[in-house]
Amino acid sequence: MLKVPDHQVAGHKAGGGRLGPLVDDSGRFYKPLQGDERGANEVSFYTSFSSNTKIPDHITRFFPKFDGTQLVEASDGTGMQPHLVLQDLTFDRVNPSIMDIKIGSRTWPPHAPEDYVQKCLKKDRETSSLPLGFRVSGARIFQSTKSGYWEPENKSSIQTLSADEVKLLLKNFVSSNASEVSHMKPDCAFASTVYGGSTGILSQLLELKAWFEDQTSYHFYSCSVLMMFEKELASCGKSPRAEIKLVDFAHVHEGKGVIDHNFLGGLCSFIKFISEILTTPEDCAADSLLEDAQKSHIYSDNGSV
Amino acid sequence: MLKVPDHQVAGHKAGGGRLGPLVDDSGRFYKPLQGDERGANEVSFYTSFSSNTKIPDHITRFFPKFDGTQLVEASDGTGMQPHLVLQDLTFDRVNPSIMDIKIGSRTWPPHAPEDYVQKCLKKDRETSSLPLGFRVSGARIFQSTKSGYWEPENKSSIQTLSADEVKLLLKNFVSSNASEVSHMKPDCAFASTVYGGSTGILSQLLELKAWFEDQTSYHFYSCSVLMMFEKELASCGKSPRAEIKLVDFAHVHEGKGVIDHNFLGGLCSFIKFISEILTTPEDCAADSLLEDAQKSHIYSDNGSV
Repeated sequence: MLKVPDHQVAGHKAGGGRLGPLVDDSGRFYKPLQGDERGANEVSFYTSFSSNTKIPDHITRFFPKFDGTQLVEASDGTGMQPHLVLQDLTFDRVNPSIMDIKIGSRTWPPHAPEDYVQKCLKKDRETSSLPLGFRVSGARIFQSTKSGYWEPENKSSIQTLSADEVKLLLKNFVSSNASEVSHMKPDCAFASTVYGGSTGILSQLLELKAWFEDQTSYHFYSCSVLMMFEKELASCGKSPRAEIKLVDFAHVHEGKGVIDHNFLGGLCSFIKFISEILTTPEDCAADSLLEDAQKSHIYSDNGSV
Repeated sequence: MLKVPDHQVAGHKAGGGRLGPLVDDSGRFYKPLQGDERGANEVSFYTSFSSNTKIPDHITRFFPKFDGTQLVEASDGTGMQPHLVLQDLTFDRVNPSIMDIKIGSRTWPPHAPEDYVQKCLKKDRETSSLPLGFRVSGARIFQSTKSGYWEPENKSSIQTLSADEVKLLLKNFVSSNASEVSHMKPDCAFASTVYGGSTGILSQLLELKAWFEDQTSYHFYSCSVLMMFEKELASCGKSPRAEIKLVDFAHVHEGKGVIDHNFLGGLCSFIKFISEILTTPEDCAADSLLEDAQKSHIYSDNGSV
């Protein structure tokens, strides 16, 4: 029996008669094929990538496993529709904290139709994409069994964060106290185990970066890095199972012998944010951040992050 | 006595009553201040950069030395005009080969006036900037005392090269035979000494890259990497004095805590081109390149590169 996923942070959501992805109880994620060329393009990327023997194993692990396409009952009640069958990335996770970061200052490929270019360019200029080289497109931060999750009040506010606001959000993502009182300084209690260490987020991002410095097969427009970990594991001294995955390949194009300098530039910018949190932990308690938090339009009065 | 420089490959040129840079006989380069805010912006960049104690020495060496501004007799006959006093980068060089590569897929800063954005965006889309992350904006390749220099027939053709054409140009830049017959395969005779080695171009580019992965002070829009060496030194087994310099800072803006992901992405793309020539030298003799050379619109019948 397919159901609506619990932990989706970005993209179209199923439920209430809308079309969206579904999951089963054995770890599969069913993503409806977008009707236009985007659906076909995503299938063709997964097909190419999953049969590409030049991709090393330490890189394929950053991509969801692909199991072809399948007709399943669509969530919007339109009957059997084609879906991508992918790995459910949060299948065996308990209360995962998740962020979705759309990488690249430019979300449109060079030869896209003009109206699409203009639409994307407008959004890139209005959001953090142009100044930062990426934009946060979703976040779901576990606070406690009692308080549940923090989520941004509206989708567009999180896409337009300033550099300081992104830094604060990334600190809150790995803090133990972020959930309790809105004006408490994030303690970055889990920064060293989630972002740091030989298997942490930073280390994984650097592996991905090294591949992007070299690979000239694919250009990933409008693709996201998903960042996940489990706070309750971290709280009791266990490995928080920090992990990154790339998702959303409806706008992947052939690299034609050139590296994906747009994705790589944005990835390096994101890496710099993460590494600054690790190298200057004292900042976590800086008063300026507190002020930022209070001023910020995404941090509401009702507390949480 | 000031004179028109011998080795300028891009930008406005003096001579014939036009305004352009001048050089003296003691190694100084006088660049007229552009009348609008660009001139003031370039002065303020040089002033800030030259007094910035956080820039390590191994990075400042990639920038022309700056000696303030000075009123000198302008080349267009308009009398005494303000000029930037800079280092003449080719002052003590004999028959230097030079390439000017404008780095970044985007030459406009986020908050530029709309007409400027549209003008730059159009050019970025029409040239190699968008697909490659950089565009060649000038080249002057020494062939021999007898044949002199190869230069592109017109400025715009060199800015619109495909990936394969750029690769070929970069090979010809370091080849001993490129000058003789147009349909000869570039032998890349000087690739290992010019591009390779611990003091070669690639090594310098990688040092620059490491700085760009970290620095958040400046964003360099529409700035170029100049690449120089002396073929005659290379031919007789001496060090070819391969060197990169950054030039053109009229569109540098504050980084505001974010890395220059646009410049960094383009730089990494350029680095990949150079490193491919070093790692796959056998390609230099590939027939496909020969065919490219013959088809290419920048390689004219009258021979040379």
